[in-house]
Amino acid sequence: MFKLLKKSNKSNARLGVLTTARGKVSTPFFMPIATKAAIKSLVVSEVKEMGAEIILSNTYHNLLRPGLDIIKKFGSLHKFMDTDLPILTDSGGYQVFSLSKLRKIKGDNIEFQSHIDGKKYVLNPKKVIDIQVVLGSDIMMVLDECVGLPTTKAKALEALERTSRWAKIAIDYKNALNKKSKTIKKQLVFGIVQGADYKDLRLRSAKELTDMNFDGYAIGGLAVGEPAKTMYKVLSYTTPALPEDKARYLMGVGYPENIVEAVKAGVDMFDCVIPTREARHGKLYLWKGKRSAVIASAARQSSRARPSWYETINITNSKFAKDSHSINDTNLKNYSLAYLHHLFKTNESLGLRLATLNNLDFYMSLMKNIRQAIKQGKL
Amino acid sequence: MFKLLKKSNKSNARLGVLTTARGKVSTPFFMPIATKAAIKSLVVSEVKEMGAEIILSNTYHNLLRPGLDIIKKFGSLHKFMDTDLPILTDSGGYQVFSLSKLRKIKGDNIEFQSHIDGKKYVLNPKKVIDIQVVLGSDIMMVLDECVGLPTTKAKALEALERTSRWAKIAIDYKNALNKKSKTIKKQLVFGIVQGADYKDLRLRSAKELTDMNFDGYAIGGLAVGEPAKTMYKVLSYTTPALPEDKARYLMGVGYPENIVEAVKAGVDMFDCVIPTREARHGKLYLWKGKRSAVIASAARQSSRARPSWYETINITNSKFAKDSHSINDTNLKNYSLAYLHHLFKTNESLGLRLATLNNLDFYMSLMKNIRQAIKQGKL
Repeated sequence: MFKLLKKSNKSNARLGVLTTARGKVSTPFFMPIATKAAIKSLVVSEVKEMGAEIILSNTYHNLLRPGLDIIKKFGSLHKFMDTDLPILTDSGGYQVFSLSKLRKIKGDNIEFQSHIDGKKYVLNPKKVIDIQVVLGSDIMMVLDECVGLPTTKAKALEALERTSRWAKIAIDYKNALNKKSKTIKKQLVFGIVQGADYKDLRLRSAKELTDMNFDGYAIGGLAVGEPAKTMYKVLSYTTPALPEDKARYLMGVGYPENIVEAVKAGVDMFDCVIPTREARHGKLYLWKGKRSAVIASAARQSSRARPSWYETINITNSKFAKDSHSINDTNLKNYSLAYLHHLFKTNESLGLRLATLNNLDFYMSLMKNIRQAIKQGKL
Repeated sequence: MFKLLKKSNKSNARLGVLTTARGKVSTPFFMPIATKAAIKSLVVSEVKEMGAEIILSNTYHNLLRPGLDIIKKFGSLHKFMDTDLPILTDSGGYQVFSLSKLRKIKGDNIEFQSHIDGKKYVLNPKKVIDIQVVLGSDIMMVLDECVGLPTTKAKALEALERTSRWAKIAIDYKNALNKKSKTIKKQLVFGIVQGADYKDLRLRSAKELTDMNFDGYAIGGLAVGEPAKTMYKVLSYTTPALPEDKARYLMGVGYPENIVEAVKAGVDMFDCVIPTREARHGKLYLWKGKRSAVIASAARQSSRARPSWYETINITNSKFAKDSHSINDTNLKNYSLAYLHHLFKTNESLGLRLATLNNLDFYMSLMKNIRQAIKQGKL
């Protein structure tokens, strides 16, 4: 399902293709987020036009609303939200631990209450697979326990051991389902490496999961409050511990420079709320200089806190009130910064839409240029 | 500038074409509203695809934000918001009287404070023309005084006399400008008939304005709190008092049945916040039955409070949670009512966008079918 096309000789960057039930996806890629079965203010065809070949949604959120009975009625999450793109669904583990109320772990069951209406739910490794079968997820994630950073080794170890046990339950269950259904067999399932920032724990987690033979491997427990340096350090020893012939997914990352650095460390897949969430607050990601030329310098600067190859601006700043420059030179060349400033100042919802279009286009363009740079031997 | 193509022999309905500097517009038409230089959550190309040939914006709102210096920099409102469609701009008179604070009329000047930041402004009949020259309005409206209903005859008379005096100042000023600039000459200017629900006053207002030879005539002071019956009554004697060879514009109207009835009374142009504002609250306008067949029955039912040819639903109602029917059979056939319900329940901004797309499509389709029905002699 994952085909490695090229390995860089400048870094651990890789070029590849991931094949899912609903189509092939060129790696490295970034997944626009449709947490609650919708990309903020956009229709899926708009992110497809920007080059997105896969999107991400969330098990926890879809379980709560609209609820599985409704998705079942429609046949899949894809049909419910009208897209033919593949969808990766996060397992909901992270949300159960971060959002839900009155959480209790009893054996392999997590009991929790919805953060919306207090309704009680139980999740466990098998149920999370069952839910993703209903959603029709092209890539399923197993239930895991993600701890924030910094954390103690004892806590990290406990989460790791639970994550490995749950991963084993999940993969055995999924393999059993594969024998009953060709459709389910086509749904990929990824394990999630934990272990906080302890090298021995990360290596142990990677080994335990690799032995279970997942379709791909995610690196979880990063982008949870640690400095970028720590993230890069963890990646430096975790990605080499993962098999070359499987896709590697760094969950919830990140800023553009984090993505460049992670690609150099051998990561193939990304998702992050940054482009959509920051659009809501009027923060725009903009290229500085010719974008095709910036990736090589980006590669050199990726560990810097403030790279010179892109900038962020806050469009609500009054200095943009009369700025007649285009928002960008791709999908928003007909709209000026002044107009977008006006839309934010007057609370016109079109502002959110244009800002989201800009930021996702930036991220999609970033990935396109990263792939190009690997191809050309520049990254 | 207005060409009458056909007069119905069943009613006073008319088919025509209005020629503006930026293109021809088939009448009767409805103008989607871009009050603050943006259509709620949509880009103009989307309403163009639905068949909109002209949109409406507002002098008062554009004066306050973004402000004239910014529009001047861009050359026109069209360039600022990126559209090549003609724009009619309301004069701002209505907003000055309904929105602004600390309003004082001194001679022909209205002094007022911005409802946003308290900043002081002065408007008068000439200045309103000047502003619309800067906006590049394809159809300018003169400054008028609109009184709510019910009102006393004394008040209605005072407003009428002021409106006529201001109209005269405006048209003389505009005619003088025409001699200096070919661009300004191409901008149409409409007078606004006032007179509340007093027949003699309406006839007097129509006569006084007609004598000034405007490019078209609006009927103001309706849809200001009166029952539909009153509106229809006023139309029944006001439209015949207007010249046949000029377009007639009923300002701020209305519900679909109001539009059908007004078309039958001889009105050619409409605008209203209903489709966009009600979309925000999840109220959807939907056809009942084949839409091409409904207009004839609509014509018979247009004075009914609850016509049978369309329905409104509130998408937030839980009965739509599992409704897999398409939102409509035109621009949203791939999205279900259940999905739109979900978007509203989860406060996803895409919900507002889809609801607005539905409602404006309903209104555009209504006008298309009205024009078709007149053509076929059915209205």
